[in-house]
Amino acid sequence: MNSTIGVFDSGFGGLTVLRALAARLPRARFAFLGDTARLPYGSKSRRTIARYAAQSAQFLVREQGAEFLVIACNTASALALDAIQDAVPVPVLGVIEPGAEAARGASRTGDVLVIATDATVQSHAYAAACHAQGLRALEMACPLLVPLVEEGWTGPEDIAAQDASAPLQVAAQAQVEVTAEVIRIYLAELNAEAASLGMNADTLVLGCTHYPLLRPWIEKAVPAGMRVIDSAQAAAEAAARLFGKHESEGHLPNAQFPVTPALRCFATDSVEKFERLGSRFLGWPTGKVDLVDLGG
Amino acid sequence: MNSTIGVFDSGFGGLTVLRALAARLPRARFAFLGDTARLPYGSKSRRTIARYAAQSAQFLVREQGAEFLVIACNTASALALDAIQDAVPVPVLGVIEPGAEAARGASRTGDVLVIATDATVQSHAYAAACHAQGLRALEMACPLLVPLVEEGWTGPEDIAAQDASAPLQVAAQAQVEVTAEVIRIYLAELNAEAASLGMNADTLVLGCTHYPLLRPWIEKAVPAGMRVIDSAQAAAEAAARLFGKHESEGHLPNAQFPVTPALRCFATDSVEKFERLGSRFLGWPTGKVDLVDLGG
Repeated sequence: MNSTIGVFDSGFGGLTVLRALAARLPRARFAFLGDTARLPYGSKSRRTIARYAAQSAQFLVREQGAEFLVIACNTASALALDAIQDAVPVPVLGVIEPGAEAARGASRTGDVLVIATDATVQSHAYAAACHAQGLRALEMACPLLVPLVEEGWTGPEDIAAQDASAPLQVAAQAQVEVTAEVIRIYLAELNAEAASLGMNADTLVLGCTHYPLLRPWIEKAVPAGMRVIDSAQAAAEAAARLFGKHESEGHLPNAQFPVTPALRCFATDSVEKFERLGSRFLGWPTGKVDLVDLGG
Repeated sequence: MNSTIGVFDSGFGGLTVLRALAARLPRARFAFLGDTARLPYGSKSRRTIARYAAQSAQFLVREQGAEFLVIACNTASALALDAIQDAVPVPVLGVIEPGAEAARGASRTGDVLVIATDATVQSHAYAAACHAQGLRALEMACPLLVPLVEEGWTGPEDIAAQDASAPLQVAAQAQVEVTAEVIRIYLAELNAEAASLGMNADTLVLGCTHYPLLRPWIEKAVPAGMRVIDSAQAAAEAAARLFGKHESEGHLPNAQFPVTPALRCFATDSVEKFERLGSRFLGWPTGKVDLVDLGG
């Protein structure tokens, strides 16, 4: 029997990490838990986030037999990685350090920008992880980006999915322009602040699993030549390397891809919404999502 | 000793209801609970909302001695008013029915529009309450409006509070334009749908305690002559009437206003953020906010 990798997020944005993981480890089995009853973590305190994340990690290890955990939630990685590692007896990988390592690989100037949720930014976990890599980092919270993604104001895919009548297309175009403008406002503020601090930033880290869905507009809004790093991708690469060591090398895949991986999804609330929206993050249907009660 | 009125919300938006209540009942004592550890309720299921709201109501009655409860949260009023009434032995008033009654008073055509959170809309509580008043109602969820308010992209007050340097003013202006455009997009969609259903809507109900802070842009975005109804104001008026009957009439105020009412605020998380942002909703400082643990 192949090993089970547990992937945890406060919502279903972490399915972008699972998608990247499955592409690298097609033979692994996955158990994904979205703590949707208690999201968003991004506006909560460290104490509360640590308690919620530890309960969620224990569910994946004790109930689902996960032998390896990937914390896809940037906020939980930033504020509760220690608490999770204390709560379960298996290796645990967050997204912050892989993101900082990828930024080091991408940056020539050593100055990087990070956009994330409020709680992730207030923890300064990315700044610390970047500093440990010899980088200087400036972080900014962008609280409107998650709701814009969840509202589906993200452009062509959503436009295509809707009725193709002209008024709807006009409305969708106006929605996409709002999203692009919000991104421009945030990044203009961040770049102006970096310049005022004398930074010569050449790399932007997407420190939230929702942000990869906004990548086309983010790429357009950054200054020419700035590299955009996706922490989800970076974490998946790091997890595949670590998991390869953890497992016998012989287990590692040579399989054809894409295949639909062995995946079970769990959520603490709103399973229908999870099933409906999760596929946008995962890239294929989530299948039936089971409701679990963590006692919150 | 004067009676204590308990006011409950998932966050601190409900302080707009408390503000309106205090203006009408300046001698009452108030205990306000924001369930900030578990907000937003607007995206959660009925079962989960009912459990959270019942725990919160019990805290206000059992621990704070509230003799009368106002559920300022539209989502909890829509999905959990019965559960709250079952959980506590005191009179409980929600915001939905007062909002519908105010709409009946305002509408000449009998056709009204309602904007609210996802969960409130999905419950169709406003449609049912309006129907009971002889009105036809069309509801629409506007999930971006709460984060826009919480991000402070709401214009002049916030611009004034910032440093008055030109770049910041330009940025704040761009933020306000995003807020105005999001409101135009939502209301254009809602009015188009109403027209396609043959409705002649002349009244818009603000079915979320965050929306009164957006009122200037909402007033500009509605068709000429449309009345805008604030459920928070309507609920406060209804509560003052009911509370006046519940209390002896002699207790009712003739005091000068504005006075700072006797108020204690509680939150299940992020008390600093509550103290910082709560005053924008309340109109005066919240004072020290006490952290409570409801076991979630």
